[in-house]
Amino acid sequence: MKRITLLINCNDRKGIIASITSYIQQQNGNIVYIDQHVDREEELFFMRLECEFSKEIFLIEDFRKDFSETIAENFEMNWHLYNSDLKPKMALFVSKYEHCLYDILSRYSSGELEVEIPLIISNHPDLEHIAKSFNLPYYYIKVTKDNKVEAEDLQLKLLKEYQIDFIVLARYMQIVSSRLIEEYPNHIINIHHSFLPAFPGAKPYHSAFKRGVKIIGATSHYVTEDLDEGPIIEQDITRVTHTNTIKDFILKGKDLEKIVLSRAIKLHTKRKVMVYKNKTVVFI
Amino acid sequence: MKRITLLINCNDRKGIIASITSYIQQQNGNIVYIDQHVDREEELFFMRLECEFSKEIFLIEDFRKDFSETIAENFEMNWHLYNSDLKPKMALFVSKYEHCLYDILSRYSSGELEVEIPLIISNHPDLEHIAKSFNLPYYYIKVTKDNKVEAEDLQLKLLKEYQIDFIVLARYMQIVSSRLIEEYPNHIINIHHSFLPAFPGAKPYHSAFKRGVKIIGATSHYVTEDLDEGPIIEQDITRVTHTNTIKDFILKGKDLEKIVLSRAIKLHTKRKVMVYKNKTVVFI
Amino acid sequence: MKRITLLINCNDRKGIIASITSYIQQQNGNIVYIDQHVDREEELFFMRLECEFSKEIFLIEDFRKDFSETIAENFEMNWHLYNSDLKPKMALFVSKYEHCLYDILSRYSSGELEVEIPLIISNHPDLEHIAKSFNLPYYYIKVTKDNKVEAEDLQLKLLKEYQIDFIVLARYMQIVSSRLIEEYPNHIINIHHSFLPAFPGAKPYHSAFKRGVKIIGATSHYVTEDLDEGPIIEQDITRVTHTNTIKDFILKGKDLEKIVLSRAIKLHTKRKVMVYKNKTVVFI
Amino acid sequence: MKRITLLINCNDRKGIIASITSYIQQQNGNIVYIDQHVDREEELFFMRLECEFSKEIFLIEDFRKDFSETIAENFEMNWHLYNSDLKPKMALFVSKYEHCLYDILSRYSSGELEVEIPLIISNHPDLEHIAKSFNLPYYYIKVTKDNKVEAEDLQLKLLKEYQIDFIVLARYMQIVSSRLIEEYPNHIINIHHSFLPAFPGAKPYHSAFKRGVKIIGATSHYVTEDLDEGPIIEQDITRVTHTNTIKDFILKGKDLEKIVLSRAIKLHTKRKVMVYKNKTVVFI
Repeated sequence: MKRITLLINCNDRKGIIASITSYIQQQNGNIVYIDQHVDREEELFFMRLECEFSKEIFLIEDFRKDFSETIAENFEMNWHLYNSDLKPKMALFVSKYEHCLYDILSRYSSGELEVEIPLIISNHPDLEHIAKSFNLPYYYIKVTKDNKVEAEDLQLKLLKEYQIDFIVLARYMQIVSSRLIEEYPNHIINIHHSFLPAFPGAKPYHSAFKRGVKIIGATSHYVTEDLDEGPIIEQDITRVTHTNTIKDFILKGKDLEKIVLSRAIKLHTKRKVMVYKNKTVVFI
Repeated sequence: MKRITLLINCNDRKGIIASITSYIQQQNGNIVYIDQHVDREEELFFMRLECEFSKEIFLIEDFRKDFSETIAENFEMNWHLYNSDLKPKMALFVSKYEHCLYDILSRYSSGELEVEIPLIISNHPDLEHIAKSFNLPYYYIKVTKDNKVEAEDLQLKLLKEYQIDFIVLARYMQIVSSRLIEEYPNHIINIHHSFLPAFPGAKPYHSAFKRGVKIIGATSHYVTEDLDEGPIIEQDITRVTHTNTIKDFILKGKDLEKIVLSRAIKLHTKRKVMVYKNKTVVFI
Repeated sequence: MKRITLLINCNDRKGIIASITSYIQQQNGNIVYIDQHVDREEELFFMRLECEFSKEIFLIEDFRKDFSETIAENFEMNWHLYNSDLKPKMALFVSKYEHCLYDILSRYSSGELEVEIPLIISNHPDLEHIAKSFNLPYYYIKVTKDNKVEAEDLQLKLLKEYQIDFIVLARYMQIVSSRLIEEYPNHIINIHHSFLPAFPGAKPYHSAFKRGVKIIGATSHYVTEDLDEGPIIEQDITRVTHTNTIKDFILKGKDLEKIVLSRAIKLHTKRKVMVYKNKTVVFI
Repeated sequence: MKRITLLINCNDRKGIIASITSYIQQQNGNIVYIDQHVDREEELFFMRLECEFSKEIFLIEDFRKDFSETIAENFEMNWHLYNSDLKPKMALFVSKYEHCLYDILSRYSSGELEVEIPLIISNHPDLEHIAKSFNLPYYYIKVTKDNKVEAEDLQLKLLKEYQIDFIVLARYMQIVSSRLIEEYPNHIINIHHSFLPAFPGAKPYHSAFKRGVKIIGATSHYVTEDLDEGPIIEQDITRVTHTNTIKDFILKGKDLEKIVLSRAIKLHTKRKVMVYKNKTVVFI
């Protein structure tokens, strides 16, 4: 069997679901998963479909063309069609913190992530040994005030060369430029070490400590031009007390960051996230 | 608009979703919510649909008959059709603990629960004043070893008289008989004060304390013949430490019981729970 | 036995703990609970002690005087001595939301709170029936732009008349004035319906919905001049998804508000909270 | 400064705290941390102290002897004295699952764990490459029905040779023998992949799936003769739904196992856990 995933977004109208599901049936497809959401206020319709087709006769590009003409144009849909059997290609950007990198790579090596990781890019040489121990190429691209544009050129060249589908900033300590964001809209996943929108920007654990909060968090979101204000994919929290120092906040936070980032990666790779109005629909 | 809720369960087959959604469309219905689940191991299909129909022309009994003949028989479905505009009628069974009763009634009086509560039945007179303060009838039916059958007769008579759809045991300290369970299969909701299957039976907080657990829980489930072994609807937990006494366990547990039971009531009244193989599908 | 609670705060110095505990022993007291915290950065020492003394010979005012001269002055302590057998007197301020009021009063009536509630003050008449059903006096003091000072005079008069120790704003929809705050420093507990410092001010659920967060929270804190910026006593959170409307946020939030506020009340009444640098030490 | 940690347990008596703290002061020690617990039902007293002494004059063995004679014998204490500057030596036992091993070793290599790991012992050769990438010795000791005693001899020999203080079973798929348990009473930490006492024994995720629970858990406990019934150190949980397969349970569970086991290791290495009556006191 061949399996496809369809993500559909359009203005809400009567009969959308019936039209789509009937169409799939006419194409001799079998719907194995359907999930849908309507934002009533905005009158927007969202759908995620997984369908199976017989290997012998199904050609994904024919389906793409036919679905577009028969259904999508009619409803003026924004839509994406994915071959569920192809794993997306993910680039990892890191700096000096190793906890997220170790976590992602150990999940990757155990087969937990349905993804390919063709390369790791870093603005520091420090974590190369970890990449090596997992047999992954590690590109050290120094970024300074003066070489920003050249460094980005190099990054973009590598991303194209390796046909990267999306980027994960695994505690990459550098603000990503507009060029990269435009090249990968809603395809750059960041982990911010606070419970956004509380404590955006630098040193959130220090700010949380100073404010005396009883709970700290981590937030995974798509990167947009506005720092730490992109659409949130996943968040989680843990308790802290007056006995915890900033160092404790950081250690507890690391565990959150790992979990929250890996959940976001899984949701993205399974095409379960749809973005609109700077928010996400996350199907489960 | 008239709104209906459909719960469907049958063996998984190709084309079910398309058949149902097309049928709704042909009847000029609009699907406002669809959720579905397939248990691949058991090859079972589950679906929950909310549809709207024009007030002028829609007759629910006609729809019921036609859907049965056109669709349901074909797929050999177990199915239920609800008029979403009708609130189910819920009977509360209580004994001496007041926390769940207060919690449910204050939610009820604020309009949070989409339910009617025609009566409260108790095997103790203690909580009558609470019923009174919410202007609800309170039937004190003493249950002893000797009058069990008569007491049940009385309970069943009241449940019929008030056309009760489902029963909530809000810390009712009495084992419910087979007769009542047969009359209300998967329609009696209990709250058990432990994280089932840990600590079934009496005094779970005492057992949890003795075992030295670091987390306690509460479990809401449908009542079956096997004590505390019915299909679980909802669970939640809270942390405890060595500084907590049994009394603390009980107090912390009360907060859990209230939350977990009220969530289960809401899920049931919105017809979001389907039961199979002693488990539940809980649509959200 | 007579039981006292001591809260002590001073600069950290060698020998504090030994001095205090030896002193208690010399007075024939028995320490039944000791907890201590040192903020190493600020070099500040915090301690909470519960001690028992023989009923026959212990006079709390003699102890107060002697402890002050023998110990407290020497270490330049800020300290408070409480008779653990006296329940503090709590005033409830409410407006139109009933969920926190119901929750607190049902805990109160079941004996869960070690507190006396001599009166309820409200700027709206709506919730009087609830006060009545619990047999508690309800003072309706209308507050407008024009009568602010007179209304406060009335509030303060009542608080003094009833010898109120601390105030709980149970979703009181009015900003409390400097006069009240000065009269009750770190003795006015508010519940804010967001995960502070995210979403301070009005309509936090609307802001949270707009931002597309995946987790909402509630925060209980002492009221200071800076709105929603006082020392945090307790926080908790719950998950939300894209399927939740603002109305759902509000309903889920109500459950949080009740739990978080009642926990803060318990911590305060057991004298487990100490305030410094706009943060709290919360002993457990 | 030299720093020691004292764990004390005895029958509760008046004056214990004052006696201990005065003694420390007389020895020119500074108490930097004190925590205490009394089990009122059992009339048992527990205390954890951290004290600093001047480097020049403090000799730990002299202190040990003097404390024993002056204080401990008098109160008939069970007590332990640790040099806080010495890291305990931890042996890791693994089988085929790599997630806990990776997690522990990446924490270890980042300096998060205050512990030494002199060796890894396994009944399978599979994970040797991971040990290698962290430069740690990996001993593959095959265990069969026939060589059980010899395998244990070898294990015990290695544990002695490396002067191991405590053992962590990081998903070691083999029941540990009485000999090992006797040699390391309350010093063998296991991670069980369920929310004990629910689902002890083999395949807990399968049992949890079958029972239809809405929450799964993991439990870290000291190993005793009774399988999965030793004193619980730490537990945590995560939510599951009807959409999760057993494979999902296992994946979600892995994240729990890692977190719960690493927390238990930290608590143990900081000497924050005391065992009595098959329960733990866990100071924070």
